[in-house]
Amino acid sequence: MSAAAPANTRPEISAEVRTLPARYYTDPAWFDRELESIFCDMWLAAGRTEEIQATGSYFQRQVGNARVIVVRDESGAVSAFHNVCRHRGTLLCREPEGRFKGSIQCPYHAWTYGLDGRLTSAPHMEKVVRFRPADFPLQRVATAVWAGHIFINLSPDPSPFSEHLAGLDQRFHPWRMQELVRVERRRYELHANWKLIIQNYSECVHCPNAHPQLSRFQHYLSGVNEPPQATWLGGFMELRPEVRTLSLAEDHDRGCFVHLSETDRRRVYYYAILPNMLLNLHPDYMVTYTLWPRAADFTQVVCEWHFHPSQIRQPGFDASGAIEFWDVTNRQDWELSDLAQLGIASRGYQPGPFSNREELLHAFDRWLLARVPEEPSLYAPDGSD
Amino acid sequence: MSAAAPANTRPEISAEVRTLPARYYTDPAWFDRELESIFCDMWLAAGRTEEIQATGSYFQRQVGNARVIVVRDESGAVSAFHNVCRHRGTLLCREPEGRFKGSIQCPYHAWTYGLDGRLTSAPHMEKVVRFRPADFPLQRVATAVWAGHIFINLSPDPSPFSEHLAGLDQRFHPWRMQELVRVERRRYELHANWKLIIQNYSECVHCPNAHPQLSRFQHYLSGVNEPPQATWLGGFMELRPEVRTLSLAEDHDRGCFVHLSETDRRRVYYYAILPNMLLNLHPDYMVTYTLWPRAADFTQVVCEWHFHPSQIRQPGFDASGAIEFWDVTNRQDWELSDLAQLGIASRGYQPGPFSNREELLHAFDRWLLARVPEEPSLYAPDGSD
Amino acid sequence: MSAAAPANTRPEISAEVRTLPARYYTDPAWFDRELESIFCDMWLAAGRTEEIQATGSYFQRQVGNARVIVVRDESGAVSAFHNVCRHRGTLLCREPEGRFKGSIQCPYHAWTYGLDGRLTSAPHMEKVVRFRPADFPLQRVATAVWAGHIFINLSPDPSPFSEHLAGLDQRFHPWRMQELVRVERRRYELHANWKLIIQNYSECVHCPNAHPQLSRFQHYLSGVNEPPQATWLGGFMELRPEVRTLSLAEDHDRGCFVHLSETDRRRVYYYAILPNMLLNLHPDYMVTYTLWPRAADFTQVVCEWHFHPSQIRQPGFDASGAIEFWDVTNRQDWELSDLAQLGIASRGYQPGPFSNREELLHAFDRWLLARVPEEPSLYAPDGSD
Repeated sequence: MSAAAPANTRPEISAEVRTLPARYYTDPAWFDRELESIFCDMWLAAGRTEEIQATGSYFQRQVGNARVIVVRDESGAVSAFHNVCRHRGTLLCREPEGRFKGSIQCPYHAWTYGLDGRLTSAPHMEKVVRFRPADFPLQRVATAVWAGHIFINLSPDPSPFSEHLAGLDQRFHPWRMQELVRVERRRYELHANWKLIIQNYSECVHCPNAHPQLSRFQHYLSGVNEPPQATWLGGFMELRPEVRTLSLAEDHDRGCFVHLSETDRRRVYYYAILPNMLLNLHPDYMVTYTLWPRAADFTQVVCEWHFHPSQIRQPGFDASGAIEFWDVTNRQDWELSDLAQLGIASRGYQPGPFSNREELLHAFDRWLLARVPEEPSLYAPDGSD
Repeated sequence: MSAAAPANTRPEISAEVRTLPARYYTDPAWFDRELESIFCDMWLAAGRTEEIQATGSYFQRQVGNARVIVVRDESGAVSAFHNVCRHRGTLLCREPEGRFKGSIQCPYHAWTYGLDGRLTSAPHMEKVVRFRPADFPLQRVATAVWAGHIFINLSPDPSPFSEHLAGLDQRFHPWRMQELVRVERRRYELHANWKLIIQNYSECVHCPNAHPQLSRFQHYLSGVNEPPQATWLGGFMELRPEVRTLSLAEDHDRGCFVHLSETDRRRVYYYAILPNMLLNLHPDYMVTYTLWPRAADFTQVVCEWHFHPSQIRQPGFDASGAIEFWDVTNRQDWELSDLAQLGIASRGYQPGPFSNREELLHAFDRWLLARVPEEPSLYAPDGSD
Repeated sequence: MSAAAPANTRPEISAEVRTLPARYYTDPAWFDRELESIFCDMWLAAGRTEEIQATGSYFQRQVGNARVIVVRDESGAVSAFHNVCRHRGTLLCREPEGRFKGSIQCPYHAWTYGLDGRLTSAPHMEKVVRFRPADFPLQRVATAVWAGHIFINLSPDPSPFSEHLAGLDQRFHPWRMQELVRVERRRYELHANWKLIIQNYSECVHCPNAHPQLSRFQHYLSGVNEPPQATWLGGFMELRPEVRTLSLAEDHDRGCFVHLSETDRRRVYYYAILPNMLLNLHPDYMVTYTLWPRAADFTQVVCEWHFHPSQIRQPGFDASGAIEFWDVTNRQDWELSDLAQLGIASRGYQPGPFSNREELLHAFDRWLLARVPEEPSLYAPDGSD
């Protein structure tokens, strides 16, 4: 705490640059357009390959009104399908996760699909003229895997996944994320717009006020941000000299990830991979967040803590200090995000000025306005027209 | 179970014939138009005459935003009125059923109406110029009675009730439904559009998968459907040779209804009397369902089991086997209807093809589209303009 | 009870004069326009000065989507501010009441405001070009105090408060309301439009039916109403000859307010100060109601009982008879208001005729239609455009 604050050497900003008008955080119609233009068009972090290791294992994710099954198929690859029967539209399964035994069968009329989505059995269709099972596969959702992270993309014409990563795969190669194993999952519900969570994540000038325990370990002005990208925002912060990792306990003898440089062993990397993943890379563990917007003012967040098997195998391995550190920090951030939602939704709200240390938020706002059309599109999302 | 499946001799259907687009099941504006064009224009099954035997006895029903009192009036007839005072619009009574003592009095200012709806007392109106009590009767809702079933019609110009029955009264005369007595009532709440319940009811190709206990008693392909009518859809299924009735117990020594033919003693008749009644006529009991749509994705269902007094008087009479049989079957169907609603409301839903054994569903869909205008009407339902 | 009913000497009314169409009580869009044109434009009763006696003491009120802090400032005056930080719009505080220690600090980035609303500290804004703290005070809400009652006004250009009172301050001077102290507060939630509460309050022809205990103490036709004003409606009723006050107990030896005339000691004054205050002035106590509309069919009501300190200091002082009298009466009125909402929202509702003893209701309806534009205004209430 005794270190002098780093000088504010970042570029100036104008007081005329302002936060967005309230309706971007409160209007259900705008929220629907965000779902369409962002969440149904970009790559979304959906889970980890370790969750579906066996053939037929699956988990479900909901994105807007899309319900997606992510499944390990017969070839060993990760596939994803809309959870809707092609006969009369029945939801194929309710369970959030489980394992299909070689096929996916609709509970209504027993239409049956292979794990590759092909319709293999459709009873009582023998007198339906021009009915060809090949015309009625499960509808596929695009998937990609990076370092154990599964991404899905609901667009019929997804952008190349490598463009989405835009170099992150090379940068974070030394962490060998694909080898890491989840130790804890906690779920949170925020009465806040999803963008407020990303904005909260993208600046640390709130840290001294909001996160006393974090500020003991990292100086909140030590961060260096990268130039904002079309698909991610991020940077790193330095650990204070005497600090080895972020933990509420003294139990962190687990050692750093072995392939990290000396420099990376003194840093925590904080990256928002747009639109729904927050990735915290520590010297000795990884925290991931996935954001699931449910309404303009309601977002579900899944937070997971991952370690390396070699750490976990060590006698006395204890992740609780890292888990509780971030659980406490999360709750502080969620409360602020909820208060921001309440204030922005209030009649008294007016767009306000940014600090020049909030430059990523302004970049994020510009990205949002460029990405989402102001007027509703003519495309009918339910395919009804 | 060993019987060979009957051959599929029904007419072919084209794979181009499809289920309806999602919005017909999810759009609140379409739902409102259905309420207006179907539920406020057709005859609705509301209850049984045995529920209101004494003068002044009443029950209430809600149809969209209409609240209707159905009452036995002084003449012994069944009348129905809007449950709204003509003074300042107060709800006249809250109770779902009860008995008026000779008149209906508003709890607010004591305006009082006869059981025929005439305003008989309106205090403090002596200095209201041109106030004539005869101008302010309770607003009447049309009623009709068929074989103990009470129907109501909210239209100011109801279609003739005989056109609605379209011959069902003659067909089901031998069951003497007016003599039957309710033994059980169960209420269900479905998170499904009302049409999905009728569609589920109108085909049995889901039966082997969904209803193992039903399939033990009836072969699911034994049904013969009548040509669809403008006001009802229906047909019958044969009992398997060794089966006498549908029951989960061995307690069915109650005997068939005495006026049934030998043929009808081997059949169960399943009729959907549009839009809100399902009528199951068994050799030895009757099950009725009334459907009460509350939202595009929410429907309340009242299911009642009826027997003949001569059966009930028999020593050892026990209806529980029939009740539990249908309660189990109902719950299986409601789960499938809920899954259909979830899937159809999903982004992945696309209209799908019918089996030729689902011809009643296609007829129902055509009926729906012919009956409900695509554009909202200019009529303001609250009478405010 | 034996007194003859006073003759109906009020002017006649025509049966063509009717209650309002349903949409004024049920349409969310109309409700929003009422919030804008009435509740965000008129003076609202918000609380009592005794609630915030110490410097920094505050309470919050919500009006539509406005969240307002009412605070005792350093000068000893009552101020009010929007509860929204000028930086990124965070809600400054959640608590419904409390005490600020000399300043109001945002929990997010520590922007700090004086009790006069001036921005006194804004960290990390040193490199924001043209940032002047004087440009970002808390947004002030107008306040006025009358006889201990605090009023707020959300309009940027409030009408003069003296025009709002329109003489009530002189009329009720003898009650010395500023000296009274709150003894009880009860909160109620009504599933009724706020206007139905005012209409219920503005006539007593419902009293014999609805309020038997009130009718024992006051003849319901004894009231004399004043000509309706643009900002209030009211009148008085006489106590029956043997009655000294309205109480369910015999415990009312507390004596009248000492400055009242003999005439006022025989009367209860009932005033609706539009749009959100009901003021009952009794010979020996005061009851106040504040109405907080939350939706077209939902209103929160705060009811408070106030006495003079000289009464409270008397041995054996017991307010419970007066409290329970009005709690019982309130619940009777709320039930009727809820029934009115249900009936008016029903399909069967049609505008009905008034008694000539309901003339204040007709005046209120005319006031409403004159005050609220039929078409939505072009003004965007969230300041976003």
